[in-house]
Amino acid sequence: MIGSGNLASHLAPALENAGHFVNEVYSRNPNSAKNLCSMLYNAACVSSLNFTQSKSAIFIIAVNDDAIEEVSAQISLPPNGILLHTSGTKSISILSCFEHFGSLYPLQTFTKRKKVSWEEIPILTEGSDEETSKHILALGKSISTKAFQASEEKRKLVHLSAVFSANFANHLLYMAKSMLDENDIDFTILQPLLSETLKKAFEIDPIKAQTGPAVRKDISTIRDHLKILDNKEDFKKIYKDITENIIKVHSQS
Amino acid sequence: MIGSGNLASHLAPALENAGHFVNEVYSRNPNSAKNLCSMLYNAACVSSLNFTQSKSAIFIIAVNDDAIEEVSAQISLPPNGILLHTSGTKSISILSCFEHFGSLYPLQTFTKRKKVSWEEIPILTEGSDEETSKHILALGKSISTKAFQASEEKRKLVHLSAVFSANFANHLLYMAKSMLDENDIDFTILQPLLSETLKKAFEIDPIKAQTGPAVRKDISTIRDHLKILDNKEDFKKIYKDITENIIKVHSQS
Repeated sequence: MIGSGNLASHLAPALENAGHFVNEVYSRNPNSAKNLCSMLYNAACVSSLNFTQSKSAIFIIAVNDDAIEEVSAQISLPPNGILLHTSGTKSISILSCFEHFGSLYPLQTFTKRKKVSWEEIPILTEGSDEETSKHILALGKSISTKAFQASEEKRKLVHLSAVFSANFANHLLYMAKSMLDENDIDFTILQPLLSETLKKAFEIDPIKAQTGPAVRKDISTIRDHLKILDNKEDFKKIYKDITENIIKVHSQS
Repeated sequence: MIGSGNLASHLAPALENAGHFVNEVYSRNPNSAKNLCSMLYNAACVSSLNFTQSKSAIFIIAVNDDAIEEVSAQISLPPNGILLHTSGTKSISILSCFEHFGSLYPLQTFTKRKKVSWEEIPILTEGSDEETSKHILALGKSISTKAFQASEEKRKLVHLSAVFSANFANHLLYMAKSMLDENDIDFTILQPLLSETLKKAFEIDPIKAQTGPAVRKDISTIRDHLKILDNKEDFKKIYKDITENIIKVHSQS
């Protein structure tokens, strides 16, 4: 395991629960590596990326996307070793100076010390050759019932859709919270509405579940909202764009 | 009960479960009124908005925001009758030709035949005078543990924050789904990520829970995403605006 951050600290124990052994943990942060090793059966904290003497078959890079190339340039593998990254957007070709390589991308957000149920997490796998692909898919399937092979193009699309639906929606929650905070209203007031909205989107389809002033083309409420946002240019811009797009999409359907 | 749509069909039974009686149901759509009456103990479907002979104390307008003024203009109340609307954005002053009036705004999205737990639903109440305010708050508290008095200004703000967090986030889900659909990927792939994202936002605060390329200022991934969106100008615009705002907000903090 190369890395000891949020993903690594969930993935390594999940792999051991599935019957694999994590032999080595490498991290630029020795304390964090030590912490992770302490959660594992018999893993050694290592300070070198030279794995030529390692008994491991698969080596997993679980670091920030930006650091993958730099880290991988320092890695030496044993014969037949497979090197994986865990990125949603990076091509596996950035590992192409190795003989066997690929990716294993778990579609989930991880927080240290916050349990997730791996069996439900979609895992997208890709390998440099057929044999490697099989090994990576098998690794994915050992920890999740929702592992499948996906091309780089599909993986990137899934990642982009995750950015829209999770990262951007989370930013909208920040916007909502900051407006409520300014008025001393507790953010948790939105919780029942949001749980129901999310449930509905999957039960009946987000396009049918849409409610609110934009889909009703309720111009007077939209004008009211823009007035409230008069001193928040950034919020106003996002409000306008999404409202326009809702009106457009729902006029077509 | 004036109206028999999504909200009315949930609110009327909830009121009866709390020990009140719904005496009359009025709706422009007689079938829908009949349906709702059949769910109530002893309510009459009425075709007139002249309630001068009614024994009811409180009259609730649960129709679309746009129709409140038109409908209320046709209503006649008995002496001391209180007239409420259920809107998140309309001022109670649109009912000011009545003696006692106010609003009761439940912050939730309702779908016919889909149960919700009323006790958890935040209800914002407002009345035209102190006595009326008390009655409306008591009505709200009888069905929910989260009913409280809120000024028009606060109610509008809560509604606006609900639009950002629920309506707009739902539209982002539509965007994500439409991209996945085009590539034959099942939308449910996003479900575990989204549940976790929502949970995290309330457990640790959306600003701290933010992940993704924008908060990491990962320009190469952002460029990649914009390239994928090259034939989707509307999606691209929203992607750019939200990404810019995430970068801005997180540079300040």
